[in-house]
Amino acid sequence: MNIFIANIQGQKAELRSDESWHCAKVLRKKTGDAIRLIDGSGFYYEAVLETVSDKRCIAVVQGPGTFQKPSNYYLHLAIAPTKNIDRIEWMLEKCVEIGIQEISFFISKNSERQVLKMDRIVGIVESAVKQSLQTRIPIVHPLADLKSILSANWDAEKWLAHCEDADKTNIRTINFNEKKNLILIGPEGDFTPAEVKLALDNGFKGLSLGENRLRTETAGLYVCQAANLLSHA
Amino acid sequence: MNIFIANIQGQKAELRSDESWHCAKVLRKKTGDAIRLIDGSGFYYEAVLETVSDKRCIAVVQGPGTFQKPSNYYLHLAIAPTKNIDRIEWMLEKCVEIGIQEISFFISKNSERQVLKMDRIVGIVESAVKQSLQTRIPIVHPLADLKSILSANWDAEKWLAHCEDADKTNIRTINFNEKKNLILIGPEGDFTPAEVKLALDNGFKGLSLGENRLRTETAGLYVCQAANLLSHA
Repeated sequence: MNIFIANIQGQKAELRSDESWHCAKVLRKKTGDAIRLIDGSGFYYEAVLETVSDKRCIAVVQGPGTFQKPSNYYLHLAIAPTKNIDRIEWMLEKCVEIGIQEISFFISKNSERQVLKMDRIVGIVESAVKQSLQTRIPIVHPLADLKSILSANWDAEKWLAHCEDADKTNIRTINFNEKKNLILIGPEGDFTPAEVKLALDNGFKGLSLGENRLRTETAGLYVCQAANLLSHA
Repeated sequence: MNIFIANIQGQKAELRSDESWHCAKVLRKKTGDAIRLIDGSGFYYEAVLETVSDKRCIAVVQGPGTFQKPSNYYLHLAIAPTKNIDRIEWMLEKCVEIGIQEISFFISKNSERQVLKMDRIVGIVESAVKQSLQTRIPIVHPLADLKSILSANWDAEKWLAHCEDADKTNIRTINFNEKKNLILIGPEGDFTPAEVKLALDNGFKGLSLGENRLRTETAGLYVCQAANLLSHA
């Protein structure tokens, strides 16, 4: 079953313009074809195409939507993009498949990558949502500098995973059920001592991911799976 | 610090031949350079190069080895290689970074990929061991057909993760501390009903990885992180 992102009003749904193009031109759907729709609200809907063109596809929703139980955790991952962009894209796809709610990217002192094609990032996120049959689309923030992430007023418990020797909380002891958690993962060269200090001054707590030295993207994935596995059903 | 795999006897160590080549030709190490050695036994050793040539590098071990605490779980992952080999290679690197002890690959009815370059697979495993500063090298079995994996006499609790509607155990309830666990992950088209039945007849139990539909390689990674995160320190 093909899934599309649409704007749904009553029984009528208009596919988002890029989704219309994909539906009409790539998948060559026709009027009368059955499709499935999501709008990011947590429901999915069975629908039938009424109008198909590469600029605008309209579908009629069949019956009530099906509600998907939300995750029992809320994870906001903020990560420095890796030099090799494939690594972060792969991680992103996996995080979305497993379940993540909010994603930020930042540039810090040791970042080797200073640019990120956000359209491509959003595309990967949305594809993974559809591929894994989910109904909620994670929030993706624009690329920011680390300082703005550190000083922003997030409604979450704030954690900084870093490799310095310091008093750190082990990720296994985080309560992923009760509060939202924001976890920061640094670039290949890690955070600088000054950045770690700034984070602590801004209410972040040091976080340990265990003994093995993990690559940036492995650490991101690890954090996401920890939230998923350590939260209670 | 560069890490090499060596055969260690007393204070003398001979780098494995491919490692000698890497040491001499790629990294251009010289006599007298300090290196770190592992032999897969759980120790690492500081050493100094005594002879350097692209065919044979000899080093002298300095002082006693440092022992690394082993994982508190033992996971044997058996997985069907994905059509796109990059996906399984990426997964493999991540599994090793996080910690895995034994890896098998199999071909089943719905496998789209029938061949696997095992040299390349072993290379990825060993690189990831070194990159993540580990001292134990996971066992990598040659590619096998599913039936031989199902009928072999493994010293482990045996699980089959599949997507059929059936009575399945949730992965969160596995005890990863007490026993070795062997977990099978099927190809893109999943196991066939006949394969699931054959597995159950051979003492495997059905395993659920949760609600989201995961890609093959995501499922492999998920299982590995579950063992790591759900086992107790």
